[in-house]
Amino acid sequence: MMLPSAVPGGGDRLPSLPATEGSAMIAIDWGTTHLRAYRLGAAGEILARRAQPTGIMAVAEGAFAETLAALLAGFEEDDGPVLMSGMVGSRQGWIEVPYRDCPARLADLASGLGRVTFGQDRAAFICPGLACRDGDGIPDVMRGEEVQIFGAMAAGGADVATVCLPGTHSKHARLRDGTIESFTTHMTGEVFALLRSHSILGRTMQEGPPDFAAFDEGLHRAGQAGGLLHHIFGVRTRLLMGELGAPSLADYLSGILIGHEIARAPMAGPVLVVGAPELAARYVRACEQFGLEASAIDADTATTRGLHALAGLMGEAA
Amino acid sequence: MMLPSAVPGGGDRLPSLPATEGSAMIAIDWGTTHLRAYRLGAAGEILARRAQPTGIMAVAEGAFAETLAALLAGFEEDDGPVLMSGMVGSRQGWIEVPYRDCPARLADLASGLGRVTFGQDRAAFICPGLACRDGDGIPDVMRGEEVQIFGAMAAGGADVATVCLPGTHSKHARLRDGTIESFTTHMTGEVFALLRSHSILGRTMQEGPPDFAAFDEGLHRAGQAGGLLHHIFGVRTRLLMGELGAPSLADYLSGILIGHEIARAPMAGPVLVVGAPELAARYVRACEQFGLEASAIDADTATTRGLHALAGLMGEAA
Repeated sequence: MMLPSAVPGGGDRLPSLPATEGSAMIAIDWGTTHLRAYRLGAAGEILARRAQPTGIMAVAEGAFAETLAALLAGFEEDDGPVLMSGMVGSRQGWIEVPYRDCPARLADLASGLGRVTFGQDRAAFICPGLACRDGDGIPDVMRGEEVQIFGAMAAGGADVATVCLPGTHSKHARLRDGTIESFTTHMTGEVFALLRSHSILGRTMQEGPPDFAAFDEGLHRAGQAGGLLHHIFGVRTRLLMGELGAPSLADYLSGILIGHEIARAPMAGPVLVVGAPELAARYVRACEQFGLEASAIDADTATTRGLHALAGLMGEAA
Repeated sequence: MMLPSAVPGGGDRLPSLPATEGSAMIAIDWGTTHLRAYRLGAAGEILARRAQPTGIMAVAEGAFAETLAALLAGFEEDDGPVLMSGMVGSRQGWIEVPYRDCPARLADLASGLGRVTFGQDRAAFICPGLACRDGDGIPDVMRGEEVQIFGAMAAGGADVATVCLPGTHSKHARLRDGTIESFTTHMTGEVFALLRSHSILGRTMQEGPPDFAAFDEGLHRAGQAGGLLHHIFGVRTRLLMGELGAPSLADYLSGILIGHEIARAPMAGPVLVVGAPELAARYVRACEQFGLEASAIDADTATTRGLHALAGLMGEAA
């Protein structure tokens, strides 16, 4: 795989999570549509959490410092570091923190942190995103997921080859020796939402309990000939021919799309899926359908372990 | 390819267009959103045309006869047959004309015509749609395109192996000896419209003159690894990295989607593309990019030649 020039950190391995060193800290995940704060203990355990719908798109012009100060008022018990990840570091965020190139180690994130202040000249740090190029030289980017990937790496053990973060824009990260070698983005969640809300397929869908048999049929379909643009039309024709009921259509479509995401991307196992339980379970099922060993952890754990590990490197990188 | 049971017509070849036989007729293409009438001469030539936006979705409940009578008032010079194709024969249309199964010959359409009346007990006939199953047993359907495919077959010569009808739901029909062997539907146009109007990709697109270099880059991209759901994210990242300008994004996306439609579907050449000139030119370019010989004819020609040839068989089938 062709990769851009990059200056990875030293040859040392990713440090395991410190159990006793490191002070309590505030970990913040600030994305386009959400803002979540976690107060972490010395070992990275979540002591308290607080969330607001003030993603960066909802912050009144420039009022990032005020928003953060308000979120943390009465939340902290001491003055440990405040470390943020996500779109808050993008051009549309608080300050733009330049992407680091892959392959990247946790130390490369630590040495690229952006610094802002809020409240009484209190410092907060913003994690950079990552950029890479795929095997054909097309660029890709992420912001926020890089922290979750390092957190998943710390939580998931040394044999994990791929971390998969399903969602609006799913990410697949290839790992090796504590390094994110490269990653790819897949617009699976957004395309599903568009087809369900705005397409001819969505018009006939009805709500129903999860239908995993229909989901599995969609996964199976993704492995067949004809391409994604043909496969999704089957949502319509199989209803028309009485082969699928209206309450099963969304699950069949979900299986087709997730199946295409997993089956058409070159992916090595074992795979660790990071996400909400219901969605992560679908991805584990999809991976297994295509012969990949897979397990799941939740996003909170990945985020907080990643930011906690990053905080542990801040002294070294400063 | 697995095909459902079907009763194709006799072993005779598709008749070439009669140059002298057959009287003048009215050919009508009545789809979901459009209604077009053509007055044809004895050789199938278009003498006059008339169009209204009263597709079947816009017809006040049940008023199909009145709508047709109003459209044809003052349009006819004699009382030749009135032959219709399209969604007017669907469950949501005038009457439901059952699908015929593939493989299908023109004579199979003629023997499956539905009959309605309008005005002073004047008869009109509605062409059936076609159904088939793809190589993996998944059903597919068309209504209206079957007439265009037989018309294209008549216009395009005996060596055409595939007729391609691009659009909201593109169709690829495999031909052999005057028969539609099978076909597949691809939701290319609808997915393009959704991504342009409702996705994160559309938000950054700007209007501009056609950029065929960007379109070709999209076609090329479709032949690479990673899958469609990954490829389309490049519309965003290549803008972000300054590799493509905002006015080129729609053409790049168009190339990716059309490229996936052509490259991921098993298709034999030569291909005859039926459609509006600008869109048909894109498909010809896409076919050539993937090594398929291709040419184009316009949809009016295909529709009228198909309905004229069908009218020529009505006596035989009745």
